[in-house]
Amino acid sequence: MTIPVTKRRENTRARLMDAAAQVFAEVGLEGASVEAICERAGFTRGAFYSNFESKDELFLQLASSVAEQRLASVRGRIDEFVASGVLRGDADPIELVQKVMDSGLDDRLGVLMMSEIRIRALRDDAFGKAYLAQDRAMLASIEGIIQGIVDSGLFALRIDVPAAAQMLMVQWEGCMARAAVSGWDGEKLHRAGAEALGQLVELIIAPAAP
Amino acid sequence: MTIPVTKRRENTRARLMDAAAQVFAEVGLEGASVEAICERAGFTRGAFYSNFESKDELFLQLASSVAEQRLASVRGRIDEFVASGVLRGDADPIELVQKVMDSGLDDRLGVLMMSEIRIRALRDDAFGKAYLAQDRAMLASIEGIIQGIVDSGLFALRIDVPAAAQMLMVQWEGCMARAAVSGWDGEKLHRAGAEALGQLVELIIAPAAP
Repeated sequence: MTIPVTKRRENTRARLMDAAAQVFAEVGLEGASVEAICERAGFTRGAFYSNFESKDELFLQLASSVAEQRLASVRGRIDEFVASGVLRGDADPIELVQKVMDSGLDDRLGVLMMSEIRIRALRDDAFGKAYLAQDRAMLASIEGIIQGIVDSGLFALRIDVPAAAQMLMVQWEGCMARAAVSGWDGEKLHRAGAEALGQLVELIIAPAAP
Repeated sequence: MTIPVTKRRENTRARLMDAAAQVFAEVGLEGASVEAICERAGFTRGAFYSNFESKDELFLQLASSVAEQRLASVRGRIDEFVASGVLRGDADPIELVQKVMDSGLDDRLGVLMMSEIRIRALRDDAFGKAYLAQDRAMLASIEGIIQGIVDSGLFALRIDVPAAAQMLMVQWEGCMARAAVSGWDGEKLHRAGAEALGQLVELIIAPAAP
């Protein structure tokens, strides 16, 4: 039995992105060569360039898939918590954020990628435009999540949804970066990010009407 | 008349740091060689190494002097505004922050340096430790500024001073980075940072007692 082409193509892309994530984490964006990524994945340069235009395109795709993974899991958990009644207006925000954020993902890799993307975007216009497009898409997803919570009627906000989304994204990123520099990883790194977010959430939520 | 040694030494350090700032802004931390910095400053490698242990040391000093410059000017303006009565409990936070933040400094250079320092600190333990020490020093200065405002009795905060300082620093940095990637510079870049800060300040300030 032969695997359908589209499925095989997906596998190739996924394996190239996994290999790229490992190589990037080890040597960074500049240091990661297409050769090294292909070698790690066990593919030829031909296979690489039939799937990605360039190392930059792969890198941005990788970053957005890491971000999308996290947001999808956050969305899922919130729906679950709203349905099960865990997400209540009088719940502790920091506890809630910790429950909602998925700790199963590699936060350190995410921090490394985001930091490299940022410095690269500051120096390279084309890359910067791609980064901003991705940033807007991520913000839109976060806004959607927040709007969903507001619509659930459990919380009201003291600022508008786009402002809240921007603040939370920036806060998460900045605190995770500092925690990662401190050498924290895994659960400890994750908790640091969740605590920073929870504190901001506490400020953004309007006091419950008496 | 001869210039005293200490004064001459200060001038040499200052000129090397100015040259380094220019070279870093152009080619980044990796690309900026000690040779290029010396050439720009018009000094020998000997002069460089009699003033700095390494490029890293110069770079960290440069970053902290940029940060210290900004904080010193912020401190000065706040004292001035408190004295003159411009800083009032019922003033608009965004307007206040914009007045307080010095727009005379090169924000884009600061963003570039902070971003490069962050990625470098994530990959290099020694550099990471130096960065964290600097980060703590900066946080302490910001805490001092905020504590001074709280002590003036004009505002109360909804969170403790260290948490507020951390949030404001992270928010400023992250929003400035995004704005800089958007190609903003000068006044526009500065306003973006001040607006983000002002919004957060509005959330952190406790409602005035009736």
